[in-house]
Amino acid sequence: MSNISLSKCGIQRKPFILVPLLFLSYFFHFGFCQDLMAGTPDSEYDEKALNTHRLDNLNLLLYTFLLILTVVTIWMFKHRRLRFLHETGLAVIYGLVVGAIIRYTGPTPEVRVLPVVPSLGTHYNHSVPPDVLWLQLSKRIIERSSKTSATYLNNHTFVYTFKGEIDNTSLNEIDQKATFDPEVFFNLLLPPIIFHAAYSLKRKYFFKNLGAIFTFAFVGTTVTAFVTGSLIWGFIQIFPYLAKDFSFLDTLYFGAVISATDPVTILAIFSELHVDVNLYALVFGESVLNDAIAIVLTRAIQSYAEKYNPNHGGFEMVAFFQAVGEFLLIFTSSLVLGSTLGIATALLTKFTRIRDFPLLETCLFVLMSYTTFLIAEATDLTGIVSVLFCGMCQAHYTFNNLSDDSRVRTKSLFELLNFLAENFIFSYIGVSMFTFPKHHFDVAFICIAFIAVALGRAANIYPLSFLLNFGRKPKISRNFQHVLFFSGLRGAMAFALAIRNTMSKARQTFLTTTSLIVIGSVIFVGGSVTPLLSCFGIPVGVDEDPDHAALPGTPHRTYGSILQQTPGENTIDGTVTEPTRSSTQSEKSWLARIWGGFDTKYMKPLLTHSKPTLIDTLPPCCLPVARMLTTSEQLHLGNGGQGHSDSDIELCIDDTDSVRSGPRAFASTQPGFQRVYFVNDRKMAMDDEDRHLFYPIVSPEALTGDSLGKQLPGSSV
Amino acid sequence: MSNISLSKCGIQRKPFILVPLLFLSYFFHFGFCQDLMAGTPDSEYDEKALNTHRLDNLNLLLYTFLLILTVVTIWMFKHRRLRFLHETGLAVIYGLVVGAIIRYTGPTPEVRVLPVVPSLGTHYNHSVPPDVLWLQLSKRIIERSSKTSATYLNNHTFVYTFKGEIDNTSLNEIDQKATFDPEVFFNLLLPPIIFHAAYSLKRKYFFKNLGAIFTFAFVGTTVTAFVTGSLIWGFIQIFPYLAKDFSFLDTLYFGAVISATDPVTILAIFSELHVDVNLYALVFGESVLNDAIAIVLTRAIQSYAEKYNPNHGGFEMVAFFQAVGEFLLIFTSSLVLGSTLGIATALLTKFTRIRDFPLLETCLFVLMSYTTFLIAEATDLTGIVSVLFCGMCQAHYTFNNLSDDSRVRTKSLFELLNFLAENFIFSYIGVSMFTFPKHHFDVAFICIAFIAVALGRAANIYPLSFLLNFGRKPKISRNFQHVLFFSGLRGAMAFALAIRNTMSKARQTFLTTTSLIVIGSVIFVGGSVTPLLSCFGIPVGVDEDPDHAALPGTPHRTYGSILQQTPGENTIDGTVTEPTRSSTQSEKSWLARIWGGFDTKYMKPLLTHSKPTLIDTLPPCCLPVARMLTTSEQLHLGNGGQGHSDSDIELCIDDTDSVRSGPRAFASTQPGFQRVYFVNDRKMAMDDEDRHLFYPIVSPEALTGDSLGKQLPGSSV
Repeated sequence: MSNISLSKCGIQRKPFILVPLLFLSYFFHFGFCQDLMAGTPDSEYDEKALNTHRLDNLNLLLYTFLLILTVVTIWMFKHRRLRFLHETGLAVIYGLVVGAIIRYTGPTPEVRVLPVVPSLGTHYNHSVPPDVLWLQLSKRIIERSSKTSATYLNNHTFVYTFKGEIDNTSLNEIDQKATFDPEVFFNLLLPPIIFHAAYSLKRKYFFKNLGAIFTFAFVGTTVTAFVTGSLIWGFIQIFPYLAKDFSFLDTLYFGAVISATDPVTILAIFSELHVDVNLYALVFGESVLNDAIAIVLTRAIQSYAEKYNPNHGGFEMVAFFQAVGEFLLIFTSSLVLGSTLGIATALLTKFTRIRDFPLLETCLFVLMSYTTFLIAEATDLTGIVSVLFCGMCQAHYTFNNLSDDSRVRTKSLFELLNFLAENFIFSYIGVSMFTFPKHHFDVAFICIAFIAVALGRAANIYPLSFLLNFGRKPKISRNFQHVLFFSGLRGAMAFALAIRNTMSKARQTFLTTTSLIVIGSVIFVGGSVTPLLSCFGIPVGVDEDPDHAALPGTPHRTYGSILQQTPGENTIDGTVTEPTRSSTQSEKSWLARIWGGFDTKYMKPLLTHSKPTLIDTLPPCCLPVARMLTTSEQLHLGNGGQGHSDSDIELCIDDTDSVRSGPRAFASTQPGFQRVYFVNDRKMAMDDEDRHLFYPIVSPEALTGDSLGKQLPGSSV
Repeated sequence: MSNISLSKCGIQRKPFILVPLLFLSYFFHFGFCQDLMAGTPDSEYDEKALNTHRLDNLNLLLYTFLLILTVVTIWMFKHRRLRFLHETGLAVIYGLVVGAIIRYTGPTPEVRVLPVVPSLGTHYNHSVPPDVLWLQLSKRIIERSSKTSATYLNNHTFVYTFKGEIDNTSLNEIDQKATFDPEVFFNLLLPPIIFHAAYSLKRKYFFKNLGAIFTFAFVGTTVTAFVTGSLIWGFIQIFPYLAKDFSFLDTLYFGAVISATDPVTILAIFSELHVDVNLYALVFGESVLNDAIAIVLTRAIQSYAEKYNPNHGGFEMVAFFQAVGEFLLIFTSSLVLGSTLGIATALLTKFTRIRDFPLLETCLFVLMSYTTFLIAEATDLTGIVSVLFCGMCQAHYTFNNLSDDSRVRTKSLFELLNFLAENFIFSYIGVSMFTFPKHHFDVAFICIAFIAVALGRAANIYPLSFLLNFGRKPKISRNFQHVLFFSGLRGAMAFALAIRNTMSKARQTFLTTTSLIVIGSVIFVGGSVTPLLSCFGIPVGVDEDPDHAALPGTPHRTYGSILQQTPGENTIDGTVTEPTRSSTQSEKSWLARIWGGFDTKYMKPLLTHSKPTLIDTLPPCCLPVARMLTTSEQLHLGNGGQGHSDSDIELCIDDTDSVRSGPRAFASTQPGFQRVYFVNDRKMAMDDEDRHLFYPIVSPEALTGDSLGKQLPGSSV
C-alpha cells in the first residue's frame, strides 16, 4: 500500500482553505517554522518531518470533516424523512463543493523543485523511467548559493523515488498532485466494502435467484462491457480528433471499467421502502458479483492488449484466447483461494476453542479475511473476488462457530468500515473532480459515454431477462426489468479502476468520464428511484416473511441493526409461525437445489456445529473419519429448533442461526435455551429454568427512522 | 499520513522469502511480468502499477501473517495457561525471527537507480534538499541505449519525491529502505491505542489515586528524562569516540524519548492475576499520562535545541524558559482541545436523537474522536494528549448518551483496533531490527543506556513515593514501589518517537538502543513479572469489589469482554450488595473530591442525561438556561438506581452506568427498567411489565481462560 500519499502534494499545497475549519489554528500556532532554517541538520529534518506531518493531517482532517458533515446531514435527512438524496449523493456533493473551494481559493505554498539530468557518463538502457534517483549536489551549485548552512548539503547523497510523469513543467501541474494513491482504494477501502456485501448477503434469496443473478453478473457484465466499448468506439469515429486518441482496445477497457454497478444507493432505498425481496436479491446479487467480473474483465483486456502485437494489426486469435483463458483461470483461482481461506477459518473456529477469547477470535476472523485479499493480490489473482467468496464462506460457515460476542463484533465492525469506506470514496470522487491533476475533460467523449453506458446496460437487462423468463417460475416482469435497468448506478469500483492508471491522455479521459458518470448516476438516478418505483408500480412495504408482520413496528432491515430478524421462529404471542412455503422446490434454481443438498449433507456438518453430523451423512465406511470431524458440541446439541430440513432455511444462516446458535454456544455450560421470543425490539431465548438470553437487535428509537414507523413524541431536535 | 510506504523499497526487495508462506504463488503466477517490457507505454505503466501493488501486498501480508501467528500462539498460551511470555513479547520474537530471515536470505530484485546532478545553469540556494526532482532524460543518454522502445522516455518529464539520505551509495543501503513511514505510527496506530487506554480507564481508582498518578506522570517522567539523559551524557565522556557524536541535548532528547513507559504487558498480567486495584490504577494511570508527557517533553527539548545558538555555548536561559513555556502551553492547549471536542460530542449526542441510528452515532463518535487527533496535529499541538483527554471525556460523558448498540460497538471497535495496532507495532519492532536500514549499533552506548534507564526509573519511583507517602493514607509500600519500578517497561510510544527521525548517526543510535530496550523489557521484564509479584509478596487474586464475589466464576476483567462488571448492583440472588465503603472520603485525593463535586453538580447534568439535573443544581437565577439544557429524558427519568450520591460511584461511569443507562436510553419509549440482575454471564434489567433487557458480558467459555476459573470438561483441542 505504498504511499498512502495524502502526501507531500495534496491539500497541503492549499492548506489555508482549511482555516475556516481550524480557527483554533491561529491561537495555537506557535510559529515553529519561521526562524529555524539556520539550525542544525537534525532540527531541520525534525522540522521537515513536522511539516509533512502537519500537512498530511490537514489532508486527513478535510476528509474526516467531510465525513462528519455527511453523517450529521444524513441523520437530519433521516430524522426529517427526506429521501430525495442518499448519503452517497450527499458525500459526493459535499466533496464537489470542498474540492471547488480548494481549487479556486487559497495560496500555494512553495515546493522546492530542482530540474536534474543524469550525471556524466551514466548509461541508462531501460524502457521505463528509473525507480530511484540519487542526487549529489555539486560544490559548484552550493557555493553559488548565498546561505552558509547550505554547505551541509555537500557530500550527502539524497534519495528520490518515482512519483509519476508531468505533461508540462509548470508549477501548477504538480501543485495538486498526490491527494491519494490509488492503491489506497484497492488495498484499504474496497476490501471491507466487498467483504461486508458478501457477509451481509441474504443468502436465502440469493440462492433462490442464483440462476438469474449469475446470468446478469457473468453474461450481462461481459455484454455490457463489450457493447459499451463498441458503441463508444463507433461513435468516436465521427470525431477524428478523438478517434486518433483511442484504440478499440482502449474503449473496450473503458467498457469493462464502467461495467461494475454499485448497489449502495439503490439498495439503501430499497431497504427503507421494503421493496420486493426477489428484486432486492437480483439487484444486490448482480452488483456484488459484477464488481468481481468487471475487475477480472479489465485485467483480461489489459492482458490482451499486452500480448497484442500492433505490427500484425487486426484481431489476434491467440492473444484473445489467452486473455479468455486468463480471465477464467484468474476468476476461478481467486474463487478457490477465497473459499479455501474461508473454510480454513471455519475449521479453525470449529475445532479450536478460540471462541473462549472473543477478542482473539474476532482478530483472527478479521486477519484471515484480510489475508485472503492480500494473498490473492500478491499472487496476481484478484483480491476482490477472493474476499467476496471468502466473505460468503465466513457468513455461511464460520459465523456459526463464532461466539456471540464475535458475531456482534464482526458484524458491527464491517458495517462501520463499510459505511466509512464508502462515504470516503464518494467524498473523494467529489473532491478529486477539482483537485486531482490528471483529469481530461472532453465534452464529446463524455456525452458519447453517457449514451453508450445506458445502451450497454439495456443490452444486458432486457435481452437476458427475456431469455431468463423462459426458465424462471416467477418471471421477471417488465417493470422489474425497468428497475433493474435503472439500478445500474456506477460507484466506488468503477472509480477505483479508472483512477488506478492515469498516465496517458486516454486514461485521463476515462477517469474524468467515469467520475462524472458516477456523480451523475448517484445524484440523479439515486434521487429519482423513489418516484420511479411508484411510477413502475413496484410494490413497496413488502415484508420479507409474513411472520414479520407479527412483530408490530419492527423494521426488518433497519439502518444500523447488528443482527437481522429471524424468520420461522416463535413470535411474541407464543404461536409458532411456520416459515413460508411460498419458496417451493419448483421455484428454486436447480443450481441452488444441488448445492443446498450437498451443503446440508457434507459442508455444514464438516464446517459448523450443525446437525445432522457427518456421522449421519457419510457412508458407513467413513465412520472413523466422520467421528474425528464431529465435535462433542455437535453430538450433545439438543434437537430443539434444529429440525428444519428445508435447505432454503439452511441456506439462510443469517436469519436462522443467529438465535439458534445461542444454545449452541452455551451448550457446554448451560442448559440449552429452547424457546425464542421477540420482545419488542429484542430477541430472547428462554431456557428450562426460565433464564433469558437477549440480543439487542435495534434500539426502539430506530423506529423513528423506519419508513413504516411513526414519529415518536418527545424526540428533541 | 503521507507514504504508508510499505513501499517500493521494503520487503519487496526480498519477496522470495515469503515464498514459504505463499506456496500458492507458484501455481497462480501467470508470468505477467516477463515478456511485456516492449509493450505500449500504457501497459508498461499498468505493469509497473501492478508490480508495486503486488509487492506492497506482500509486505502487508508479512505483517498480517505475523499477527495471525501471534493471535494463534497467544490463544495456545492462554489455553494451556502458560504465562511466561505475553502477546507483545511473542509479537516481538516472531518479528525478530522473520526480520532475520528476510535479512539474511533471498535474492534482491533489481532497482533501477540513476545518479543525477542538477541540470546546467540551475541555482539552488536552500539549506535543505529539494522536495521534488524533475528528470528529463536527454537524447544523448537514450540514444546510447540499445532498446528502441526507450525512445518513449524522450520528451517526457518524470517527477521524483524526496525519500531520505543515504550514507554510502552501495545498493545494499537502499536495499531494505522503506518498510513503513514513521508517520503511520503517529497518525494511524498510536491514536487508537491511546484512545482505548483513556476509554477503558477505570476512572474510579484513577481519581482515587489522582495525586500519586499526576506526581509520577508529570514530575516523575521529567525527572526520569533528565536523570537518564544526564547519566548517559556523563557515562559517554569515558568513551571519546562517543562523546564527540552526542551533545548534552542529544542525550537529553534520548532521555525524553525513552521516558514513556508502556503498560500493555504488565497490565495484561496484573489483570489476569487480579492484582491490587490501587497498584493497577497507579501503573495504568502513570503510563497513560506519561506517554503524553514524554511526547510533549521531546518536542520541548527539540524546540530548545532549535532556539539554542551553538555559538554562544553554555546554558541559554531565554531558550530554556521558552521551551518550558511551550511545554506547558502545548500540553494545556492539547488538553483543552481534546476535552472540548469530547464535550462537543457529548452535547451532540445528548441534544440530538442521532442515537436512533446507532451506525451513524458510532461513526460520528469515531470520527469526532479521530478529528480531535487531527486538529491537534494540524495546529501544532500534540494529538496524543488531545486524544487522551478526549477519550476520557467520551468515556465519562458521551458514553452515557450513546445507544446500547453504540456502546458495544465503540468499546469493541477500539478494543480490536488497540489489539491489532499494538501487536503490529511490536511485530514491527522485531522485524525492523533487521530490515530497517537506519540502525547504528554501538555496544558501549547500549550498555550505558540500559543502566541509565534503570537508574532514571529508580530516580522517579523511590524518591517520589517517599514524598507522596507523607500525604497519602494508604501508603505506597516498599514492595509496591519495587513493582512500580519494574513496571516501567518501554513500548510503542518510545519506539514511535525514536523512529520518527533517523537522519543523523546520533538519532540512529537512539533508534537501535530504544528498540533493544523495548525488546529487552518486553521479553525479559514482562516474562519475570509473575515470579516478581510473588517474590515481593504482592497480593494477587484480589477482587476489585467484594460484591463481585457474589458472582461465582465470573471473571471481573476478562480478556475480550465488552462491558465491565457492575459494582454496587443487585446480585443474582436478589440481595443488594452495597458498594464498598472502604473508599471513604479521607482516602480520596483532595483533587478528586473537588472535581467530583463540580462534575456531579454541573458537568454531568449538562452533558449527560443524569440526575440531578441542572434545574436542581444551578442557582435559581439561571433557571431558564437550566431548562433549556435539560432534556425531557432527563426529567422523566425514574429515580430507581440513580440515587447514589457518592462521587466515587459517580466517577466510575464504566462500572455503574453501563447498566443504569439501559433505562435512560429507553426512557422515552419504554417504561424504565428497574431491577438489575446477573444471570450467569449476562447482565439483565427487568422492568415493571417483566420485560427483560440483557447485555452479553462475556461468554461462559471465557472462564476457561480466566486464572480463577476451572477447566471445563468437554473442550476440544
